[in-house]
Amino acid sequence: MPVIARLPHVLYGADYNPEQWPESMWLEDARLMREAGVNLVSLGIFSWAWLEPRPGDYRFAWLDRVMDILHAHGVLVNLATATASPPPWLSARWPESLPLTKEGVRLGPGSRQHFCPSSPVYRTAAAALTRRLAERYRAHPALVLWHIGNEYGDHLTACYCEISAAAFRGWLARRYGTLDRLNEAWGTAFWSQRYSAWAEIEPPRAAPGPLNPTQQLDFHRFSSDTLLECFELERAILKEVTPDLPVTTNYTYSNKALDYWRWAASEDVVSYDSYGDPARAETGPEMARSYDLMRSLGNGRPWILMEQTPSLVNWRPYNVLKRPGQMRLWSYQAMAHGADGVMFFQWRASRAGAEKYHGAMVGHGDLARSRVWRECAALGQELTRLDGILDSTIAAQVAILLDYESWWALETDAKPSEGVRLLDQVRRYYAPLHTRNLAVDFARPDGDLSKYRLVLAPNLYLLRPGVAENLERFVTAGGTLVMSFFSGIVDQDEQILLGGYPAPLRRLLGLSVEEFDPFVPGQANSLISLDGTFACDLWADLIDLEGAEALATFGGDFYAGRPAVTRHRFGGGYAYYLGTRPQPVYMARLLECVCDEAGVTPVLDAPIGVEAVRRSGRDGSFLFLLNHNPEPASVTLPGSGTDLLTAGRLAGTIRLEPYGVMVVREDEGADHPHG
Amino acid sequence: MPVIARLPHVLYGADYNPEQWPESMWLEDARLMREAGVNLVSLGIFSWAWLEPRPGDYRFAWLDRVMDILHAHGVLVNLATATASPPPWLSARWPESLPLTKEGVRLGPGSRQHFCPSSPVYRTAAAALTRRLAERYRAHPALVLWHIGNEYGDHLTACYCEISAAAFRGWLARRYGTLDRLNEAWGTAFWSQRYSAWAEIEPPRAAPGPLNPTQQLDFHRFSSDTLLECFELERAILKEVTPDLPVTTNYTYSNKALDYWRWAASEDVVSYDSYGDPARAETGPEMARSYDLMRSLGNGRPWILMEQTPSLVNWRPYNVLKRPGQMRLWSYQAMAHGADGVMFFQWRASRAGAEKYHGAMVGHGDLARSRVWRECAALGQELTRLDGILDSTIAAQVAILLDYESWWALETDAKPSEGVRLLDQVRRYYAPLHTRNLAVDFARPDGDLSKYRLVLAPNLYLLRPGVAENLERFVTAGGTLVMSFFSGIVDQDEQILLGGYPAPLRRLLGLSVEEFDPFVPGQANSLISLDGTFACDLWADLIDLEGAEALATFGGDFYAGRPAVTRHRFGGGYAYYLGTRPQPVYMARLLECVCDEAGVTPVLDAPIGVEAVRRSGRDGSFLFLLNHNPEPASVTLPGSGTDLLTAGRLAGTIRLEPYGVMVVREDEGADHPHG
Amino acid sequence: MPVIARLPHVLYGADYNPEQWPESMWLEDARLMREAGVNLVSLGIFSWAWLEPRPGDYRFAWLDRVMDILHAHGVLVNLATATASPPPWLSARWPESLPLTKEGVRLGPGSRQHFCPSSPVYRTAAAALTRRLAERYRAHPALVLWHIGNEYGDHLTACYCEISAAAFRGWLARRYGTLDRLNEAWGTAFWSQRYSAWAEIEPPRAAPGPLNPTQQLDFHRFSSDTLLECFELERAILKEVTPDLPVTTNYTYSNKALDYWRWAASEDVVSYDSYGDPARAETGPEMARSYDLMRSLGNGRPWILMEQTPSLVNWRPYNVLKRPGQMRLWSYQAMAHGADGVMFFQWRASRAGAEKYHGAMVGHGDLARSRVWRECAALGQELTRLDGILDSTIAAQVAILLDYESWWALETDAKPSEGVRLLDQVRRYYAPLHTRNLAVDFARPDGDLSKYRLVLAPNLYLLRPGVAENLERFVTAGGTLVMSFFSGIVDQDEQILLGGYPAPLRRLLGLSVEEFDPFVPGQANSLISLDGTFACDLWADLIDLEGAEALATFGGDFYAGRPAVTRHRFGGGYAYYLGTRPQPVYMARLLECVCDEAGVTPVLDAPIGVEAVRRSGRDGSFLFLLNHNPEPASVTLPGSGTDLLTAGRLAGTIRLEPYGVMVVREDEGADHPHG
Repeated sequence: MPVIARLPHVLYGADYNPEQWPESMWLEDARLMREAGVNLVSLGIFSWAWLEPRPGDYRFAWLDRVMDILHAHGVLVNLATATASPPPWLSARWPESLPLTKEGVRLGPGSRQHFCPSSPVYRTAAAALTRRLAERYRAHPALVLWHIGNEYGDHLTACYCEISAAAFRGWLARRYGTLDRLNEAWGTAFWSQRYSAWAEIEPPRAAPGPLNPTQQLDFHRFSSDTLLECFELERAILKEVTPDLPVTTNYTYSNKALDYWRWAASEDVVSYDSYGDPARAETGPEMARSYDLMRSLGNGRPWILMEQTPSLVNWRPYNVLKRPGQMRLWSYQAMAHGADGVMFFQWRASRAGAEKYHGAMVGHGDLARSRVWRECAALGQELTRLDGILDSTIAAQVAILLDYESWWALETDAKPSEGVRLLDQVRRYYAPLHTRNLAVDFARPDGDLSKYRLVLAPNLYLLRPGVAENLERFVTAGGTLVMSFFSGIVDQDEQILLGGYPAPLRRLLGLSVEEFDPFVPGQANSLISLDGTFACDLWADLIDLEGAEALATFGGDFYAGRPAVTRHRFGGGYAYYLGTRPQPVYMARLLECVCDEAGVTPVLDAPIGVEAVRRSGRDGSFLFLLNHNPEPASVTLPGSGTDLLTAGRLAGTIRLEPYGVMVVREDEGADHPHG
Repeated sequence: MPVIARLPHVLYGADYNPEQWPESMWLEDARLMREAGVNLVSLGIFSWAWLEPRPGDYRFAWLDRVMDILHAHGVLVNLATATASPPPWLSARWPESLPLTKEGVRLGPGSRQHFCPSSPVYRTAAAALTRRLAERYRAHPALVLWHIGNEYGDHLTACYCEISAAAFRGWLARRYGTLDRLNEAWGTAFWSQRYSAWAEIEPPRAAPGPLNPTQQLDFHRFSSDTLLECFELERAILKEVTPDLPVTTNYTYSNKALDYWRWAASEDVVSYDSYGDPARAETGPEMARSYDLMRSLGNGRPWILMEQTPSLVNWRPYNVLKRPGQMRLWSYQAMAHGADGVMFFQWRASRAGAEKYHGAMVGHGDLARSRVWRECAALGQELTRLDGILDSTIAAQVAILLDYESWWALETDAKPSEGVRLLDQVRRYYAPLHTRNLAVDFARPDGDLSKYRLVLAPNLYLLRPGVAENLERFVTAGGTLVMSFFSGIVDQDEQILLGGYPAPLRRLLGLSVEEFDPFVPGQANSLISLDGTFACDLWADLIDLEGAEALATFGGDFYAGRPAVTRHRFGGGYAYYLGTRPQPVYMARLLECVCDEAGVTPVLDAPIGVEAVRRSGRDGSFLFLLNHNPEPASVTLPGSGTDLLTAGRLAGTIRLEPYGVMVVREDEGADHPHG
Repeated sequence: MPVIARLPHVLYGADYNPEQWPESMWLEDARLMREAGVNLVSLGIFSWAWLEPRPGDYRFAWLDRVMDILHAHGVLVNLATATASPPPWLSARWPESLPLTKEGVRLGPGSRQHFCPSSPVYRTAAAALTRRLAERYRAHPALVLWHIGNEYGDHLTACYCEISAAAFRGWLARRYGTLDRLNEAWGTAFWSQRYSAWAEIEPPRAAPGPLNPTQQLDFHRFSSDTLLECFELERAILKEVTPDLPVTTNYTYSNKALDYWRWAASEDVVSYDSYGDPARAETGPEMARSYDLMRSLGNGRPWILMEQTPSLVNWRPYNVLKRPGQMRLWSYQAMAHGADGVMFFQWRASRAGAEKYHGAMVGHGDLARSRVWRECAALGQELTRLDGILDSTIAAQVAILLDYESWWALETDAKPSEGVRLLDQVRRYYAPLHTRNLAVDFARPDGDLSKYRLVLAPNLYLLRPGVAENLERFVTAGGTLVMSFFSGIVDQDEQILLGGYPAPLRRLLGLSVEEFDPFVPGQANSLISLDGTFACDLWADLIDLEGAEALATFGGDFYAGRPAVTRHRFGGGYAYYLGTRPQPVYMARLLECVCDEAGVTPVLDAPIGVEAVRRSGRDGSFLFLLNHNPEPASVTLPGSGTDLLTAGRLAGTIRLEPYGVMVVREDEGADHPHG
């Protein structure tokens, strides 16, 4: 089923903010949208102050007109609940609705997200507006999707005010039941932190020394849950009034604040704002990674690329322009990784405000001359040829485990090394797989892993209950696990899992770790393996083998000769362990061997910079070929097929233009067993 | 007319703070002042707590004695209103008079400028003291100049307290009249910021995300105006009591907080505190630039170098000493650029307090041995030979446009590139002109430009009403304009001037800019011109010619071959445009060609590091030759003349000592048509 | 007499936090302690919330049991007053007991040291707990030492709240008596800061510009004194209840916040927490330096190494592991420099909290496999052979002057160069002496210096009354003084000592300094001496000789040829002066010559990285040989002796293992006249 049942096409469009423009321009906007192939716009995301200029004084007439115009032009609407930026009157009347930093600074209005997520005033007003909108437009023919809030947790990840403190205490009481259990979980015997009353508990505000890490971890959990409550509050209203309409909220780039696994469970469709920096060479693979995460959050379902810029953004220090063809390439990259819709921020570039230099489909200048407009309109037309891929999926044999609670715990202070950062480790696993065009999912460590042949666990520092058993089950059943140092160290309360690191995984990994040796930047050691000697840095585990075999040993220091990389036969599978951070070439070789051993094979052998992804569905199998290079590239197809974009027949070795794309509908019978 | 009618000499002196020393030393101070040629001191700048030790308890007896002693020794007085640092009792009794940062930190006493500029308490107390001082000393024979406040906006540029918020609302109401107009100007349709009541408006305090840029711009305007109100309040009292005495306040180095054009309109004489860092090679040209600005602020009138150090300062991390001769050289540099007075901070080095390591004419040690004292006293004597230059002026054919509102807007956040900084761009225009000894003024974009042949507009980002027309008028009449990228982009509300960048200047420049391509640091492109290939960086405009011709094209990237530097014949003149930031050698060559074309010629061809400036007046023409090099230099004079410092006759090729200075009174009939 | 009269052995043990573990483990802990040779533990340091879970509700039963178990196993107790981290109920009930930063941020609970040192609430509760503990355990047979607080001034050095402000005013009133004297001392004539009432005075909170330096200096003094009052409050109670038990509190690494000279006067035994970073090559010498300071604070008495890690810490960004043998080496280094006890933080690694990754004697893993445990247990056994050295002392002929008030004043803002940092200068004197195995004490500038031959004064910026006379006395009597630039500049009020720098020392040094020439980083000059030419940087004094002779002159700049390093015969001794910062090789040569001249000779000539220290006592003379190199080293002994660790006889050239240690009981009659 398509993402939007009523719109069986690749979604194409943008954020549309008509309130910034005179009504006289709305018809022209709608006409241009048709010209550009736009079939969906996100409407009203920052319209609260326009919809409710004074408390309780709702003004929907203008929105009625916009909806009608759009509908008349065949443009459907992703209607926002408009609650991401409260109007000035809210904080002016109720200053306590403004958020507080950990240093006690009250953050004011004038930008956006200036609300305490626990504020009853904010929630009541947001709910009232949501209900009014739902009731007014429940039957509007243009309405096909609800857009709740906007980029939750982007600017404001947590609030430390008294209202939030009380909510935190309530959340803790629900989590722990009794104060004794909280004292136990937080380890308050340390540094004399034992609580004798709930009222004594505070958010982790600025303090003279390092804060209790479990308190910090629970505050992460609470803050993610509290923003989720805001989302759920609006969702419940929408589902009550319009039970058949899907809802979404747009996720953001590398957002660590929200446990998206928990959030995604409440969404009908995952949507994502993708803002990779064109200035960085790693951006292509990083976007692929974030797209794979979005697909995985939705359990493999198609998702929507809700925002990207057609040209440049304005919030980096230096905002590099996407080169001609790059916007198209990256749009197809999102689709290759499972998106069924490609949208922009925004339709028409603002004249005023903090984002007026953000790119848009319609810029400030003469449309007739605009390269950006030409590329956008051309893409809109081209995408109509891809309806066949709707609802097709990607069959990955490899999963990378991602656990937000573990991520939060890992990067809290007072660790052996602040150099151990989850995304860096994920990148080091993901990059060589991506280079080889291996499809990768993300998965929860306690989820069903049975469909994967290979599971990668970079720094799975915190083990929630059941995770160790789940991993054992996976390997026992023949799966292959690759895990990095500083995994399996603490439980869900961030307390050490006693019994020799990593205690619950020793049996599975066939080893224990006696000591950690964190490195200072610039410090290195070497790995000696049958393949040669490789550099490693950041960290060394002093490993005792307990059944595993050493694949590589350390070349230097007082533990020279001790195992650095190991493999353990466990049940029907293998558990690998990396006791250090090897240089990329070693990671690539190791993962290649592991994949071969596990029977994981790439979609395609392709030159550097050429990405190949296969989506499969009822209508067949679609091979996306994406040339990220500014030069042409040659690729040999595994079989024959038809390029959906040109309708040309393809077989053998084909040529991809610089930033070129092909979407090959593969002929039946072609040999493509995996990916 | 001399700056100070009663003092027809080059002013020479220092800040004098006798309250820091026992009365027994005052006579000796006055005696030493005579020895050093001091004819003017700035008195009482930080004396409020001494003059009014308790609210309303005024003590003038000590100041009477100081004034009398000075007068008896022939030293005149620039008397301060003493309001730059309120006494502790003010903030102790009225804590609300203290300023608040944007994060809500109340800044305390213990340093200086610890007052909210909108505070009625501060203003009332400052006005009362000013009136008392004015009435007491109105007829004192030593009093020749009033010194209001001190370095306004140096430490404290803005206050965010509730009193300031109310004042800001009042200022906005006066500017906009109606809330609708404010909503329109601020573009509050963006991000749901529409105000429904004046009381909802706040200063741009700390917020979760980027703030409304027009709100920020108006707060800049308000803050400059509010400090100006403090100045005007005191000025009005002084003018009421002593209508014939001139007033001044001292401006500071590269101060961006105050719109000095607006301020200077209220001053009888511009004065300036010059603190260039001797550690930096660029300091000489930068000081020249700031001196040219000071002269221009006063509409060409002579100004006073109110403060400089004779040796070193104490507020940099590393405070490098001026080399022997350097203080003298830089003093003459100020005079070359139009100063008629040279003064120091301070007369006698403090024993205590935050500035005791700041250099002074009289240091902590033995005067008989002091190099600094010797140099100061020698300069004082020497300056008596320069009375002839008083009131002479500099005839510049070139002006650089400087608009504070545009500067504020340009450097507010959320722009395409934070690397675009006005002073950097000004420097890149000023430096090659200065190197060639071309006299330069600064001018307001909406001022009268008819006296210039060449007008330079580095990043004139914001166009106030009438500016585009003024520039067209200038070029039409035969003038030459050189303008840089990212000019003419927004109106006074910081809203995009629609119609293709830079819309109001397209006709004049003969081009439009389709896209911006900001560079990351380290990124570069090249300029291909008839003269060769040059590097450029920071930014590229994608230019469409509309009548202009390309002088250089880009050498690389997808817009290779498109225009980078252009020239447009417009009316009787030319409009040049730079769509990038060229390397300095290109700027130098381009500006040389432009100057030749425009008939702008240098004062003198001189070796690198030798500065030549000509002042002209009723008494003739004076050529300042300043050798900034620590080695000797040879210069060929355009004619013959007399060195005022040595009375020696000069002609042909002469030798300047290291850090040497000559002030040549040029013989009549000599050939010096320009500058 | 041993440090602990009842424990005539080298103290060995750790912080013990049994409240973090089930009671069932306590017996096992005690058994393991015996196995490891532990004879003393620090108990209860963070137990307040466990001892008094609710206000006034004291629970001592658990501590009774711990004390009894320890006693039964022969482990004595250093019992803490448990006041370093107040329980959450304290700040929940009395939020005003929390500290405030200079920006007004209220620091919350959740870490430790979250109390305002002036808070009556905190002090009352801390005193009550201290009294209860003292009365309960006064006669407990395990109790041998009191541990007051913990690492005072480590996280929290000062509080800026209203309670602290009132206390500051009281402290000032006691110091100055009258407001006139305070105004005089603070130099409030500067910047209009004259106070007309005590209530106007504030702590040096955030302000618009640089704060009054004397205000800042007095606030340093006040803050150190205020924390000392907390210590004294508890000490008085303990001395009242248990007059015969010694008290201590643990000092911290390079702590600048506390004037340890004043603190040490109130302690029975100095104890120290040593956390040198194994990642830095300079750590060995730096630890030696801090150990020499600890010994000197206790007037030469043995001290206790109260905390160190057996392996790694967790509060640096990157926490490098001590290599095998390094913990043992550094433990002996502490003893070589006068420690009679070696203890760890902590006994058993925590499961939870902010320090769970801090190393411990008993780690998280399997004890049987633990290298760290093996090394700890071996050291515990080995130390029993060193009882003979107890109470022996080190006879240094060299002292480095250290004055905390001068340190505070030197590093306050608004100085000629922020590059002048006391510890850097101390290091540059200490390092070459340490390399040559010269014993060094630290001394107060106004203390008795008669026992030293050589006194070093790096940047003795502030001269308290009597210091100049004391130094003159020392040199007159034949001593040698070496002093650096920017010494003797200000008096105790941080006011310039007028009369030509350094006025009170001109007679002694035979020179005066006309000007300072601070350098920017990267700037250098050269020293020309009979020995050759050397680099110097940071600073140059322009020196006039007044009796001294120049040992080196500057090679460059306008003062080339003027003196840079001088020597002055004064009475029976010499006063050297360094007017710049020479490169290390020059410092080494100069100090070698000075030592030779002054008759100061090293303990031993040894290879680089081999440290030799001699302790002498009733039981003879003990030569510590410490090889800091990871390679073996050869040393030639000055005589013969017995290695206490192996009981082997030694003479001639012996070999030290990598990180190896020997403690040689030297045979009588051996030739070791010094050190």
